[in-house]
Amino acid sequence: MASDYSSSPITLNDLNPKVLKCAYAIRGEIVTHAQTLQQDLTENPGSHPFNEILYCNIGNPHSLGQKPISFFREVLALCDHPLLLDRSETKAMFSADSIERAIQILDQIPCRATGAYSHSQGIKGLRDKIASGIEVRDGFPADPNDIFLTDGASPAVHMMMQLLIGSENDGILCPIPQYPLYSASITLHGGTHISYYLDEETGWALEISELENQLKTARSRGVNVKALVVINPGNPTGRVLAEANQREIVEFCWKEGVVLLADEVYQENVYAPDKQFHSFKKISRSMGFGEKDISLVSFHSASKGYYGECGKRGGYMEFTGFSPEIREQIYKVASVNLCSNISGQILASLIMSPPKVGDESHECFSAEKEAILSSLARRAKILEDAFNSLEGVTCYKAEGALYSFPRINLPDKAIKAAEEAKTAPDAFYAWRLLNATGIVVVSGSGFGQRPGTWHFRCTILPQEEKIPAIVSRFTQFHKQFMDEFRG
Amino acid sequence: MASDYSSSPITLNDLNPKVLKCAYAIRGEIVTHAQTLQQDLTENPGSHPFNEILYCNIGNPHSLGQKPISFFREVLALCDHPLLLDRSETKAMFSADSIERAIQILDQIPCRATGAYSHSQGIKGLRDKIASGIEVRDGFPADPNDIFLTDGASPAVHMMMQLLIGSENDGILCPIPQYPLYSASITLHGGTHISYYLDEETGWALEISELENQLKTARSRGVNVKALVVINPGNPTGRVLAEANQREIVEFCWKEGVVLLADEVYQENVYAPDKQFHSFKKISRSMGFGEKDISLVSFHSASKGYYGECGKRGGYMEFTGFSPEIREQIYKVASVNLCSNISGQILASLIMSPPKVGDESHECFSAEKEAILSSLARRAKILEDAFNSLEGVTCYKAEGALYSFPRINLPDKAIKAAEEAKTAPDAFYAWRLLNATGIVVVSGSGFGQRPGTWHFRCTILPQEEKIPAIVSRFTQFHKQFMDEFRG
Repeated sequence: MASDYSSSPITLNDLNPKVLKCAYAIRGEIVTHAQTLQQDLTENPGSHPFNEILYCNIGNPHSLGQKPISFFREVLALCDHPLLLDRSETKAMFSADSIERAIQILDQIPCRATGAYSHSQGIKGLRDKIASGIEVRDGFPADPNDIFLTDGASPAVHMMMQLLIGSENDGILCPIPQYPLYSASITLHGGTHISYYLDEETGWALEISELENQLKTARSRGVNVKALVVINPGNPTGRVLAEANQREIVEFCWKEGVVLLADEVYQENVYAPDKQFHSFKKISRSMGFGEKDISLVSFHSASKGYYGECGKRGGYMEFTGFSPEIREQIYKVASVNLCSNISGQILASLIMSPPKVGDESHECFSAEKEAILSSLARRAKILEDAFNSLEGVTCYKAEGALYSFPRINLPDKAIKAAEEAKTAPDAFYAWRLLNATGIVVVSGSGFGQRPGTWHFRCTILPQEEKIPAIVSRFTQFHKQFMDEFRG
Repeated sequence: MASDYSSSPITLNDLNPKVLKCAYAIRGEIVTHAQTLQQDLTENPGSHPFNEILYCNIGNPHSLGQKPISFFREVLALCDHPLLLDRSETKAMFSADSIERAIQILDQIPCRATGAYSHSQGIKGLRDKIASGIEVRDGFPADPNDIFLTDGASPAVHMMMQLLIGSENDGILCPIPQYPLYSASITLHGGTHISYYLDEETGWALEISELENQLKTARSRGVNVKALVVINPGNPTGRVLAEANQREIVEFCWKEGVVLLADEVYQENVYAPDKQFHSFKKISRSMGFGEKDISLVSFHSASKGYYGECGKRGGYMEFTGFSPEIREQIYKVASVNLCSNISGQILASLIMSPPKVGDESHECFSAEKEAILSSLARRAKILEDAFNSLEGVTCYKAEGALYSFPRINLPDKAIKAAEEAKTAPDAFYAWRLLNATGIVVVSGSGFGQRPGTWHFRCTILPQEEKIPAIVSRFTQFHKQFMDEFRG
């Protein structure tokens, strides 16, 4: 088809080469293929050996049937349409604390205008709430002026990469496997991705010696290492870092003078009873590091957690240990986009200040929250066991986050068949899985993995009643696949 | 304070130099200063010779008291909290067509999940509505697959700059004066800003000869000119382009092989009775140019128009005349950020498909819309006349958009005083105006202007009943300023 556009002003060669180079597997070719299959199923039911597509490629809970937290949506609806607050019927239709909260929020906005651009960092009253929430979580002070509200965590990560990367000489230490937003953003901003490997054999542990080695190698190549990305709880690994390990990481950043970019969007998603989330800010403060010792950005989002409100694009970054001059630059860059969306801002404040004991909504809120989190824990366990029962598959426990990331030992014949199909072996497996079962997973090559190892990431998000059927379809597919390609 | 951070890993010198270079006057120093004054007024009423800050620096209608369009907010509230649709009270509290529309929208979303990430281009059903709205507006077909829903127009502009700019060798033709998003985005992406001057003497006309000259000069310097930015209706100029002029512009882009980036966010804001908005797509199609002749991106936003829903961050770009390979690249870049916020997506569809004659909301909707637009037209005229009555000030008619952009002939003594204060003369004037009256305007130097000319941009957005007082404060200030500095 390209030739039809031969007289167009712009061809592929005219585009920014950094855009051409960038890859983002989460919505790559396999998802486009899944969308085609889905259309097939709508137009010709029975045209494939399954009757629905199960999107396990992306942490998108509501798309697979998870219901929103009622309190959050009540407040959002009232803020969207404040005239409801003048109606007598409203008291019967909304909880007392959602009404109270909506009024409180509206009172913090000049003219009560949820339709106005806010301060470039977000509405001050909402940042106050978030700062209080962080203080309650960490036991250390938080400053609303350190909070930047953002349209989810992704634009916040881009903003930091834009700030830190001036040329390909600037490097960012990133885990492998990683969430591919990081590699995509580093590529788009023209920086150097310095991989550090997580150790699969010890359940995807982060070894400081590996960080040190990669930093040293990068520096010896003349790379100016600006920052370290840590994702905790881990995506795609599900690892929840131990406190002692976090202290080592903070010490490393302090000693080496690199910014710590802490992706903490899964902080509410911890399933392992012996593990607990600790923010890097709490860890660094508890070690005695203050504002002037370490530069730290914590990313959070309304898209994950038990709420899973991906479509609202709400999130924030907490930004500590940067000089006023640097803050001014961040403020300026945020200002060019004016502000993040106000519903997302409101939601970001709500997740950091949910109903408390004694509030009318509290019982309902707690029940909704616990039902989601306990079900996610059960689903994580069922999938872990199911994957571990497959021939040649090993899967570490998802201690947190929303994913299983099993390793598959693929037979040589499958690797050869993939080579012939000009695709990575695990992408070949994922493609076959989709065509046989309608289940969409992302191959390990999209996240990065040690050469010669193969994985896939599968979310734990299908509704619980569907899990047995998924496990059985998956198991059957895997058997057939192995039978076909076993040496 | 900088020295306190001397041991921080990151100093100003470590930042991306493109970020340091970027400027965005709309929320520059003067706005920060205004925020300080506002805090003063709260803490010490009477501490300044005015009792409120009037933010005329930014097109942010709701922040100055404009009310939202009821129908839009009803639909948004119902989509935010779909459980309302199950309540018997809802019929009494919402219009029948807002209920119907909300149901229609929810039915187009898998699982009715407004909390899920959508397709990277936005929800298909909403894009269908937008495409139909474009067809009705233009009388030419529009394809939902050409629509990319975005968090307002700003991220859409950034996305295009990211796509088109690979190095400083890539140039973008931009008007002077311009909305500084363009210069900021070109700087952030490391491209070359090629200025073409609008002709103030003919009411800010866009002369093709000027485009041709600037293009020729840029090419002779080895710049690869990728695109032409046209803002219509104009920001800050208020000019609405004549159809014949638009045809010349399309012809220029076709002949010279440059992408036409059409900022059409003020398409609903036309006040001159002899002027009408025509989209560049309509113009190009009416000239017989098809998909393969011209590459055109039209930006639209829910932030402006009569609705002015800036805080919702809704918008779209319509993207025609690009090969499938290039579309894939845009899709990929959009995918890295997953999707724009769903409330903004819904709102973007609503502005392109408002209530029709016969719908229950139609009468109320029309009354709200007409009240806002006719009031804006009156305000534009009052401010134009007021500015023209000031000594040394000339102000062209705002035919459209949301701004007055008067020129001030500053006395030499004022220019000298500005030099001494190390600021641009018009910034000096704006700063004095703020300190004397509480009115925030943006100086012409923030938009670009012919060397030696001075301007400021003032929105026409303060509520109508406040305009006389503003005019009188402004007039008094200007007299005193001129008396102080007259030669």
